Amino acid sequence: MKFFSLPRPGAELVLAERDVPEPGPGQVLVRLRGWAVNARDLMILKGFYPKPVKPDVIPLSDGAGEVVAVGDGVRAWTTGDRVAATYFPDWLAGPGTPEKTVDDLGGTLDGVLAEYAVFAEDALVAIPAHLGYAEAATLPSAGVTAWRAVVEEGRLTPGQTVLTLGSGGLSTFALQFAALGGAHVVSTSGSDEKLERLRALGAAETLNHATTPEWGAAVAGLTGGGVDHVVDVGGGGTIGQSMLAARYGGHVSVAGVLTHEGAADPILVLVKQLTLRGLTNASRETFQAMNTAIERTGLKPVIDRRFAFDEVAGAFAHLESRTHIGKIVLESA
Amino acid sequence: MKFFSLPRPGAELVLAERDVPEPGPGQVLVRLRGWAVNARDLMILKGFYPKPVKPDVIPLSDGAGEVVAVGDGVRAWTTGDRVAATYFPDWLAGPGTPEKTVDDLGGTLDGVLAEYAVFAEDALVAIPAHLGYAEAATLPSAGVTAWRAVVEEGRLTPGQTVLTLGSGGLSTFALQFAALGGAHVVSTSGSDEKLERLRALGAAETLNHATTPEWGAAVAGLTGGGVDHVVDVGGGGTIGQSMLAARYGGHVSVAGVLTHEGAADPILVLVKQLTLRGLTNASRETFQAMNTAIERTGLKPVIDRRFAFDEVAGAFAHLESRTHIGKIVLESA
Amino acid sequence: MKFFSLPRPGAELVLAERDVPEPGPGQVLVRLRGWAVNARDLMILKGFYPKPVKPDVIPLSDGAGEVVAVGDGVRAWTTGDRVAATYFPDWLAGPGTPEKTVDDLGGTLDGVLAEYAVFAEDALVAIPAHLGYAEAATLPSAGVTAWRAVVEEGRLTPGQTVLTLGSGGLSTFALQFAALGGAHVVSTSGSDEKLERLRALGAAETLNHATTPEWGAAVAGLTGGGVDHVVDVGGGGTIGQSMLAARYGGHVSVAGVLTHEGAADPILVLVKQLTLRGLTNASRETFQAMNTAIERTGLKPVIDRRFAFDEVAGAFAHLESRTHIGKIVLESA
Amino acid sequence: MKFFSLPRPGAELVLAERDVPEPGPGQVLVRLRGWAVNARDLMILKGFYPKPVKPDVIPLSDGAGEVVAVGDGVRAWTTGDRVAATYFPDWLAGPGTPEKTVDDLGGTLDGVLAEYAVFAEDALVAIPAHLGYAEAATLPSAGVTAWRAVVEEGRLTPGQTVLTLGSGGLSTFALQFAALGGAHVVSTSGSDEKLERLRALGAAETLNHATTPEWGAAVAGLTGGGVDHVVDVGGGGTIGQSMLAARYGGHVSVAGVLTHEGAADPILVLVKQLTLRGLTNASRETFQAMNTAIERTGLKPVIDRRFAFDEVAGAFAHLESRTHIGKIVLESA
Repeated sequence: MKFFSLPRPGAELVLAERDVPEPGPGQVLVRLRGWAVNARDLMILKGFYPKPVKPDVIPLSDGAGEVVAVGDGVRAWTTGDRVAATYFPDWLAGPGTPEKTVDDLGGTLDGVLAEYAVFAEDALVAIPAHLGYAEAATLPSAGVTAWRAVVEEGRLTPGQTVLTLGSGGLSTFALQFAALGGAHVVSTSGSDEKLERLRALGAAETLNHATTPEWGAAVAGLTGGGVDHVVDVGGGGTIGQSMLAARYGGHVSVAGVLTHEGAADPILVLVKQLTLRGLTNASRETFQAMNTAIERTGLKPVIDRRFAFDEVAGAFAHLESRTHIGKIVLESA
Repeated sequence: MKFFSLPRPGAELVLAERDVPEPGPGQVLVRLRGWAVNARDLMILKGFYPKPVKPDVIPLSDGAGEVVAVGDGVRAWTTGDRVAATYFPDWLAGPGTPEKTVDDLGGTLDGVLAEYAVFAEDALVAIPAHLGYAEAATLPSAGVTAWRAVVEEGRLTPGQTVLTLGSGGLSTFALQFAALGGAHVVSTSGSDEKLERLRALGAAETLNHATTPEWGAAVAGLTGGGVDHVVDVGGGGTIGQSMLAARYGGHVSVAGVLTHEGAADPILVLVKQLTLRGLTNASRETFQAMNTAIERTGLKPVIDRRFAFDEVAGAFAHLESRTHIGKIVLESA
Repeated sequence: MKFFSLPRPGAELVLAERDVPEPGPGQVLVRLRGWAVNARDLMILKGFYPKPVKPDVIPLSDGAGEVVAVGDGVRAWTTGDRVAATYFPDWLAGPGTPEKTVDDLGGTLDGVLAEYAVFAEDALVAIPAHLGYAEAATLPSAGVTAWRAVVEEGRLTPGQTVLTLGSGGLSTFALQFAALGGAHVVSTSGSDEKLERLRALGAAETLNHATTPEWGAAVAGLTGGGVDHVVDVGGGGTIGQSMLAARYGGHVSVAGVLTHEGAADPILVLVKQLTLRGLTNASRETFQAMNTAIERTGLKPVIDRRFAFDEVAGAFAHLESRTHIGKIVLESA
Repeated sequence: MKFFSLPRPGAELVLAERDVPEPGPGQVLVRLRGWAVNARDLMILKGFYPKPVKPDVIPLSDGAGEVVAVGDGVRAWTTGDRVAATYFPDWLAGPGTPEKTVDDLGGTLDGVLAEYAVFAEDALVAIPAHLGYAEAATLPSAGVTAWRAVVEEGRLTPGQTVLTLGSGGLSTFALQFAALGGAHVVSTSGSDEKLERLRALGAAETLNHATTPEWGAAVAGLTGGGVDHVVDVGGGGTIGQSMLAARYGGHVSVAGVLTHEGAADPILVLVKQLTLRGLTNASRETFQAMNTAIERTGLKPVIDRRFAFDEVAGAFAHLESRTHIGKIVLESA
């Protein structure tokens, strides 16, 4: 089997071959067929990721494939099952804890950028029947985090207003989930072309943040005083505008930011009675609840471009160019 | 102005005329243009309503119209505003209490079956801009109760399953709100024709309870073990089947039932870890939140048939025939 | 090692000996030192339990002891750790599901009425440091269920009113947890002597249900219209009075009842806008949260009488006599 | 009657006399007997308050007294009733909105620093029977805000850990409410003498922030990784340490801060998955729920020093000296 590894942060990815692993007791061997790249993976490659990374790590957390063998005692899966791996293998259910989130695929643990990988039986979920492997590979990071922000913690109700920032994977999922729940979605982007695409995906209103740098107040103006919920993925640099865009008593999900830039001014938190909530990925049960909703509603993830497995460098380059809408994936035949 | 009154429960409605009232301090005079009839109004007329009714009551809780005059000190409304009255005039916000719910329009207080009526300033809500008066008149009872059941207390999330019973006003609103929130809706009816109509309104699956009297188990079978949420409006006679239709840990909203028939078997509540929640109407803030959602999404209430103001007897006869889908309304030119 | 088993429901318990088991991979061997008996165990013995029971089951779900050996790969426990087993070994976290609750100790699985037993690594919790083994053995059934009813789902706040019924283990835990959370607790019993003891445990008010058979209305009278929360353990026979004792909008936890007697009248659920919630045991995370609270506050379970391991028949006889307050336990030196 | 007014921010308070006002329709005349001063009042006096203040405002939001006359149509109150005024007269129930919170006593509206004042019927609450007027006067600002932080939004459960900062009125109430709810409270102060007093009030652990300037990490160390809930009243200067003191997934209530100093670093919000929630005062229903709890539990507010009505300057000077524990009040015979 072929696999990529990263000798050390900042180095080049190395493509190599080794034997297909055998699943041990309680383990499942998956032939991976689809993968997705994330900003976090790019930070790991470049050495900017602020959390621990295993030496010679196999990168990427997001992959989907087919069960090809199961170890002793495995009851949940059988050959041919279509599955995706969970971002935090130890976070099965309930609220997050340091213990449940200490290990993450493609970080402290080997990830999925390989033709085959073994996973613990309970570190997998069944993928929606109507999605291909590459589509399903978009779910573990961007999908689950957006679901947690908008649905699980956002407790979105129909008719509420939701603001999404930009056209990255997490934001397009947040847009789709909010629209699915009957929300009035406002989306920003720096490109009018992308704004048009976001409207096609369900955004009721859009705003070009390049031509309207004071977009926080502009969004508040568009929505009668501010939105109920902001899904902020923009790093520290956007939190101030996000707080201006939120209504009195509104919520700001702080997701995806890994920078010390910018800061939340406590007086705005207080005067507007805001709730700021930091959130990353979520539990396997959250992933399963999202998959149920995706399957029942037939929702399709937004894929920007598809690369072959060994074109991963091109996928990262495309991600870095920031010209995409939705997810960038790899797939094998 | 013309108005109807009910000399005593069980009597005939009397049509009479009197002077248009003047709004006192803090009051608003509304020219009513649309009305809706409810099963509760029918019970009052027939003398079966188990709660107190004022002698010579002007019937009906559900009406919408136009502000034509305001009393001293009224700040919230001005002539020409389009409004509906709230079912419980004293329930402005927060959880219900005996004090907030002691008085109800068309019950302990005069209702809206008149060409004009005065209301306290804070016992009105603005109606959605895209709805006519007769459409808006469907909202105060059936709409608000369905919203409370499905959205406010049901905390519906996209992809959840919701069961609605029959094609009455409350159930069709529950169907519409659930579909709006991305739910997978299962609806029952005793008529295949109506089931077709319910599918057109957004039901993903339907079931004829006349041909499948054990519909509780059938719904559980259709939905992989039971629905997340049942909106039960069927009186005591349906609660047992509803509990069978709910999933382990599911919710059953008990709404609209005013009969001692049937009973909830505690062992089923326990073994399936169910939550049963009784609910009637809700606060003015809930009504406003629903209206915001209706306006933002353009949702249209389902109207079965329209009668003129003085054809109210015909409207009640049609309601009693139980052949309708959605709401039966009155309107004036 | 000695152990008891039940050849079949309705038979006598058999005391026998066998080799101490060895822990397999991921398993932990515990030397049990304390046990508690529950009404559910009595039902299993007598053959009245409505759920499946394994042939030749080792009875009892509630036990605590000391880790004496661990199998391969066990990371969470080490020799000497003081632990209790969880009632549902597969319910680790999150909401309950049929899958998580299908197996229960002393029911579908062998229980703890033995000198030694092996458990899966994640089917154990650490017990509070200030409790002896017999004290800790009171926690898995009565403690966890009461915690779920009062704290986790009851969302008790200081100053709320809570009603507990009788002096059994679940009710005394509910009383203690409610008092710990600053609630005003009303407790009933059929004996004035027990009522005095319940006051000493923290009940602010008590009521003799033998001399006041209409205790529902009486409790409502004592508490200005009804209590916020009833923890009903009385089987179907008490649900009607419990609903009368609850305030408008109040909650009734239906716990511990396994009888078809009595029934919840839907009209009362509706008119009083009640929430009825069926609940049994809970997840391991709930057990751990309760233990943290017990340890931090130094709470002591109420033990009625202590028996030796081989006096289990006496313990069941005492339980059946219904003269106890709190829990009946076994302990070994 | 005597009353104080503030000609303009930054000026001296002026003591004057005028006729006792008459209550209009729906109004209540209260003879005030107890008052409390708050940091916000001091900011108003000194001209540092960032929100609008009425010219010639009668200062202070916090007062309690006796109903001496009622206007036409008042149903809720009668002569002799013991009452306190609500901070936001228009916030009766439900979540806060800009409309409900635009007017505040002693800010945009005349406050209570007078021997008599009239209030709208629904801008008053009954005070707990066991409290004197000066004690009850501590409740409207510090009490209600602490209750909202700890109980209503904090959803405190027994055994959780709560951190309070310093010995001001809001923090001592937060300490008392948390202890009442069975929490393990950690309190800081810059004085060992005060720490001793805080322990007497129920703090389980204390920490001198003067001698331990890195108290955030120290609190995390004391509590096994951080507290569940921080009630931060320290202005921007403490938010960073508060976030360090919170556990993974913990809550930080940002209350009482009206300064642009300091800032919440988004990366800490994200990495620790924190929730930051800004909150000020709350609704009348929240005030009533707190009073019910205070009355049922007999809780006594902490009063540092009592001044006479016309010694208000001394009370402010004492507040400014920051040597107090709990509240500083005025009272009249």
